[in-house]
Amino acid sequence: MGFIKDHTVRIGLLGVGTVGTGVARILLTEQKMLHARCGTSFVLNSAADIDWSSDRGLDWSGVARTEDAYVVVDDPQVDIVVETIGGLEPAGALIARALRNRKHVVTANKALVAARGKELFTLAKQHRVDLLFEASVGGGIPIVKGLREGLVANHITAIYGILNGTCNYILTKMHMDGLEFSDALRQAQEKGFAEADPTLDISGGDAAHKLTILASLATSSLVDLGQLHVEGITEIESLDIAFAKEFGYTIKLLAICRGVDGKLDLRVHPTMVPNTHLLAAVSNELNAVFVRGSYVGDTMFYGPGAGQLPTASAIVSDLVDLSRDLTLREGHRFCNRTIDPSSAATVMPIGEITNRFYLRMHTKDAPGILSEISGVLGSERISISSVVQLEAHRVGDLVPLVILTHEAPESAMERALARIGQFPFVRDKVMRIRLFTDGA
Amino acid sequence: MGFIKDHTVRIGLLGVGTVGTGVARILLTEQKMLHARCGTSFVLNSAADIDWSSDRGLDWSGVARTEDAYVVVDDPQVDIVVETIGGLEPAGALIARALRNRKHVVTANKALVAARGKELFTLAKQHRVDLLFEASVGGGIPIVKGLREGLVANHITAIYGILNGTCNYILTKMHMDGLEFSDALRQAQEKGFAEADPTLDISGGDAAHKLTILASLATSSLVDLGQLHVEGITEIESLDIAFAKEFGYTIKLLAICRGVDGKLDLRVHPTMVPNTHLLAAVSNELNAVFVRGSYVGDTMFYGPGAGQLPTASAIVSDLVDLSRDLTLREGHRFCNRTIDPSSAATVMPIGEITNRFYLRMHTKDAPGILSEISGVLGSERISISSVVQLEAHRVGDLVPLVILTHEAPESAMERALARIGQFPFVRDKVMRIRLFTDGA
Repeated sequence: MGFIKDHTVRIGLLGVGTVGTGVARILLTEQKMLHARCGTSFVLNSAADIDWSSDRGLDWSGVARTEDAYVVVDDPQVDIVVETIGGLEPAGALIARALRNRKHVVTANKALVAARGKELFTLAKQHRVDLLFEASVGGGIPIVKGLREGLVANHITAIYGILNGTCNYILTKMHMDGLEFSDALRQAQEKGFAEADPTLDISGGDAAHKLTILASLATSSLVDLGQLHVEGITEIESLDIAFAKEFGYTIKLLAICRGVDGKLDLRVHPTMVPNTHLLAAVSNELNAVFVRGSYVGDTMFYGPGAGQLPTASAIVSDLVDLSRDLTLREGHRFCNRTIDPSSAATVMPIGEITNRFYLRMHTKDAPGILSEISGVLGSERISISSVVQLEAHRVGDLVPLVILTHEAPESAMERALARIGQFPFVRDKVMRIRLFTDGA
Repeated sequence: MGFIKDHTVRIGLLGVGTVGTGVARILLTEQKMLHARCGTSFVLNSAADIDWSSDRGLDWSGVARTEDAYVVVDDPQVDIVVETIGGLEPAGALIARALRNRKHVVTANKALVAARGKELFTLAKQHRVDLLFEASVGGGIPIVKGLREGLVANHITAIYGILNGTCNYILTKMHMDGLEFSDALRQAQEKGFAEADPTLDISGGDAAHKLTILASLATSSLVDLGQLHVEGITEIESLDIAFAKEFGYTIKLLAICRGVDGKLDLRVHPTMVPNTHLLAAVSNELNAVFVRGSYVGDTMFYGPGAGQLPTASAIVSDLVDLSRDLTLREGHRFCNRTIDPSSAATVMPIGEITNRFYLRMHTKDAPGILSEISGVLGSERISISSVVQLEAHRVGDLVPLVILTHEAPESAMERALARIGQFPFVRDKVMRIRLFTDGA
């Protein structure tokens, strides 16, 4: 089955690093399988990279290799351009040029799509081509297709999940082996699950890029990356992990998108997930995303969020989709839920959101302290659901005081924390971790 | 975005029961949203049901309602027929007629697709139309699309998961509340998670239908339902659940498809899943399917496996896909991985498969019994990994004896069980539950 008429689609590849090599490998070795499945002969027409000193273990015969990426995007032979360079430039300029040349583009570049979606989707629309980005979120997990097509009949009311494998690996190690953050990070780097410079991952920035893309898809409108509330995992201590376990929670970096009264609640932060929730069981470098639809209810997509071949698998699925596009009657295009670059989503300020909180502080072991702290929370109408104060082993030691609260507005908590921080008996910053509640 | 040219697609609905009403509801109330997402105006042209005494809470104006389903499948106005009658006939004859009339067909009918796929897919191919069936497996979970399109770049090496919500609900209640099977079944019936006649579900038959469909998709060939090894959950006792917990496992009804040496290992049976595996955490009526691809690795799709609106959500996603088909240039079709009805998969006999086993028997509390039983296992080269024999509280009581084995061929276990069953000190049938191992 598949296409009744066979046809050939020519691919130009920009960047032959880890992911680009994976794409080349699938296109060069799986031609037959792909043809059997969709009737399309995918030909790797040309590939650009600044370094061709290695052949990456592949047979490149028949592929025009160049150091000049513009040769690829300007080549009239090329039907679809695959961008796996990463970063904003030159990737952005090359994609823009390809779209202007009326080539479809497939990218894995979450930073670029999140930051410059307006420009690029507008260009694609003007030139009647598609910019597909399955690989930009969740690596090999077909979450973009699931959202765009599989759940096309649904209004999406919430998306939440684990979108950064580096953070999930670090937090898993902290939970399993009782490691401190810095040791878990070093282990992640040794195992290849964290970059030499892990800033973008551990700051929550990478998860924010991906959430921006998912939220844009869910709302069919552009979400401004700058409007997200983003916190990373660098301040989480083994003590917090231990308390979380004690209370029956697992700490995960969650990316959350909810529709509330016509606005979007959009944030990335460490979250205490109850151990009864499936996300608590998603460990190591794996990713998982819950999608809540108006008709389907809750679904979850799980799998490898990064890696050479998973990411390449996602890119090739976009190529197969685009190969269909090239068989549509004149004037038709197929994407059935995509991002309208002329429509902007309204993001809710974090202060308007309501959450449950875990607070951990170090205080002196003296009478009246708990009363003063709970007094501040009470005056902000924040209700306490649980308190644990550990004993000091020596006179004068600081003791950890942990408070779980019921739901309270973020703005009230912000004011309470400012006041608590001024107490002379509270040392260092108060650690605040949000609790997962059913509405995400 | 979406289609640049708008177009109209006319739907004919067969069967307006639970699922059919859900489809009608989405089509009648979400026209605008669907048009915005794909440029297609979906019109519910006609609907057939034997009972129109109720309007199902919907406004049917503009819809031709009839008691004669052939009026719908023969109506030249209808582009796509949706079949939600269920069962083999008259659903099968109606679908065949619709395909002969060159109408695309969408069905949720797992029994029909599993049993008569060869005939129906051949008809679809001959008449150059599509027969889509997203809703037939995993309810609202877009697993068929994920497998067919999202993972199109992968050879599928394994599919395994929880495909029957009734069984999963019953097993969850047995685990959580210590219920016996019959009580858990009654509770499932009260909550609407089991039919009045639950035979098809609790026998494993429904999961076998769904596995047949997934395995056919994974191999792009037809799988013969009759070749599956199928066991249900009716013989599981609360004692087995208790032992499973003790050993760190959760009992789930798993449907398993693995490629082994060019053949398919295909089976449905109760399985002890280690609590560290994500499937152990999939509870109540929910479904979850792991798909292992050659490039992507392990992915999982999770969500509601049944229900009016989740199933309708899946049917509408098929309608949106088919609406694209109608915009392809002459001679093209879009399904990129589907079932080739002229190709048959070779299924491996269960005896050739290797598994780990849990064995539970009731024996007399007498000397030498463990030695005799372990002697039989040893002579079949089945190695024991763990043994638990509980004390008898009164002289003459039967005691449960539980054995976990290492991997052993099914044929050897079959011979061993036949011999153990002949011992006079073993009462009743020996309960055998397979253990989940990583290769599924």
